[in-house]
Amino acid sequence: MKKASDFVDEKRLWQRHVDMARFGATSKGGVNRQALSREDIDARALLLKWGNELGLRGAMDDIGNMFLRQPGTDPSAAPVLSGSHLDSQKTGGRFDGVYGVLAALEAVQAVKQAGIETRRSLEIVNWTNEEGSRFEQGCMGSQVWADPGKLQKMLALKDSQGVMVAEALNEVRQCLPKLEPRPFAFPVHALIEAHIEQGPVLEMTGTTIGIVSGMHGSRRFSIEVQGEEAHAGTTPAAARKDALFAAIDIVNALRKIFHDPQDVVRFTVGRFEVSPDALAVVPGHVLFTIDFRHPEECVLTQLGDQVEGICRQWAGPCDVAVKETRRAACKTFEGFVPEAITRAAAELNIPHMPIHSGAGHDARYVLDRYPAAMLFVPCEKGISHKENENATPSDLTAGVRVLADALVALSA
Amino acid sequence: MKKASDFVDEKRLWQRHVDMARFGATSKGGVNRQALSREDIDARALLLKWGNELGLRGAMDDIGNMFLRQPGTDPSAAPVLSGSHLDSQKTGGRFDGVYGVLAALEAVQAVKQAGIETRRSLEIVNWTNEEGSRFEQGCMGSQVWADPGKLQKMLALKDSQGVMVAEALNEVRQCLPKLEPRPFAFPVHALIEAHIEQGPVLEMTGTTIGIVSGMHGSRRFSIEVQGEEAHAGTTPAAARKDALFAAIDIVNALRKIFHDPQDVVRFTVGRFEVSPDALAVVPGHVLFTIDFRHPEECVLTQLGDQVEGICRQWAGPCDVAVKETRRAACKTFEGFVPEAITRAAAELNIPHMPIHSGAGHDARYVLDRYPAAMLFVPCEKGISHKENENATPSDLTAGVRVLADALVALSA
Repeated sequence: MKKASDFVDEKRLWQRHVDMARFGATSKGGVNRQALSREDIDARALLLKWGNELGLRGAMDDIGNMFLRQPGTDPSAAPVLSGSHLDSQKTGGRFDGVYGVLAALEAVQAVKQAGIETRRSLEIVNWTNEEGSRFEQGCMGSQVWADPGKLQKMLALKDSQGVMVAEALNEVRQCLPKLEPRPFAFPVHALIEAHIEQGPVLEMTGTTIGIVSGMHGSRRFSIEVQGEEAHAGTTPAAARKDALFAAIDIVNALRKIFHDPQDVVRFTVGRFEVSPDALAVVPGHVLFTIDFRHPEECVLTQLGDQVEGICRQWAGPCDVAVKETRRAACKTFEGFVPEAITRAAAELNIPHMPIHSGAGHDARYVLDRYPAAMLFVPCEKGISHKENENATPSDLTAGVRVLADALVALSA
Repeated sequence: MKKASDFVDEKRLWQRHVDMARFGATSKGGVNRQALSREDIDARALLLKWGNELGLRGAMDDIGNMFLRQPGTDPSAAPVLSGSHLDSQKTGGRFDGVYGVLAALEAVQAVKQAGIETRRSLEIVNWTNEEGSRFEQGCMGSQVWADPGKLQKMLALKDSQGVMVAEALNEVRQCLPKLEPRPFAFPVHALIEAHIEQGPVLEMTGTTIGIVSGMHGSRRFSIEVQGEEAHAGTTPAAARKDALFAAIDIVNALRKIFHDPQDVVRFTVGRFEVSPDALAVVPGHVLFTIDFRHPEECVLTQLGDQVEGICRQWAGPCDVAVKETRRAACKTFEGFVPEAITRAAAELNIPHMPIHSGAGHDARYVLDRYPAAMLFVPCEKGISHKENENATPSDLTAGVRVLADALVALSA
């Protein structure tokens, strides 16, 4: 019997990446294709066109998640899903997200070309706004899909221009051909999300396929330090309430607590905004964020719970307000879905290994309801969320070959 | 003989401050009257109107400095000048600058009312753009006046909207009545600039008048830390080039070097800009500034010369570029002008003391050419460059009484 992996076409797969990278292409070779933007709409339209050419049936739910169905022989059986997201960071790369969608499309095309009829339907999915860079709520589509109670809150979110998600979605609907509606959380047998690793492990170990065993939990904090603006020339140090120096003392105390000789802790201060940001004025206010991730729930609790106390202890003459803005539990990927990926890779003799994901992905929300897994391929130097993000056609293709065979196995 | 100080009118002086504070009034009780703005033009027009009512003759030079002359009996004698600036910081107060202009106006009016005829002319001056908040070059008017070679460079400076100083000056000229031209650096016998202290010393010591003995020298640096953006979830600490953490390490090392138990050193990191300033991205770039002031030239040299080395030493995995953007020498105010202020205060039995200025003022540039001095009055809690800047009518008045008698003595 022919295997789907034999029909995966490296040139076609690569060309589709090139075609998609035109939407939001930046001068430095990256992509700025934020969720529900003009560029995202163009990418969605091209995906629909390709799906149409393959005879796939498009659908869209109320948060803009798109589904392209290749029907199975048993319409009553729950489908097998695969996909990721077409949106990007503001200064993002050509592979983060889009690879998972194009991998699923290529896999389904390979299944068809192999003449394989699956019992379960296969569906390609494009989740809305995974990056959270335009509307600041990452994995928006998959979150709402898994927990429809979040819909209204998400629809009301605004971008920096004041445009609501609901308004942006209306524009998406007007620009795309009419698609059949889809309920949230419809029954799914299994989901596989393919993605570039966004880290250096596969490249460093010379491994082509990572089968994700778990995902870091994360806690996010927003910290405001309130001091007092003062004249840089006339105000003695003793009379200052310097919000910048207080924030620096706090960050340094946090760095000590979060320091990890094993380098498993991920501790990032990503936003750091100083006001009034004037050369001759002692800063009166600082807002900064903490992004803390770890694979173990108990460490998340033990370290994260110290944040507020440290902030209070090191604020000096300033006031400090600490807000935990998000907590996401650690996830474990196990059972028949990751096993199907492992088996497919083994049968194809493609080097593979279990791997932990420091990044969050849509699959984590699907996993709240249904069996799910992820498949990673290497990216150059582990660089991601940057315009010089890169991956090789052969690694991308190897990932799709494994994906195609695993999807066939799961949809039998 | 009648003394000019007897004719200083507290109500009139206060009411003029209230009237001026309408131009650019902020909701928090402060003033946003940036140089050459609509609000600055309104303030200039009102000053001209008041001068006109007193029969003073207005003039303006090519950088927009305004002069109002009360002629003396000897037209060939160099005049005595007094004044400051009408422009403010973006979130400035109702006294910084404007007090010095209104004090000079009130003093000249008191001299006239006392029926005193001075040999030298008295001139009220309003220097252009002392604050440097719209066009980023503080003491613009007094700098060009003292060193006309700087004119073309200043005229070409642009604000954040791209408007050039030259264009803004044209608008000022169109909106104001035609004024006679003035050359730069015309002969001046002496200048006194009255100003709020912008520090806590006079209030703390219960002194009404500070006679400025010197002005801090200053050095300014702009420091760029170049790291590498990276994914907050996937990039191990060891693989990061975190520009924020490097900048924090540099700032902390600098704080140690600049720490001064005597609290004479003024060390401020005022601008601190982190890119890309995104929650889940390791910062790739930080730009920050150092504003360092000290009354002693040798300390300015000794400490300031260490900045670049410290930056290199603490940049960790990042690159760092250090640029010294300005150096201003320490200034000493001595001789017959400060002596005239001291004598006037002593004769009026108003508590006075020598004081050092941590802030820069227009008088420092006049001093490069001609004898000059400054007179400080207390401001509430030393607060300045803020909307809640405050001063009492009686302190402001005491300052003008001393100023008026000193001007009479100097113009004899």
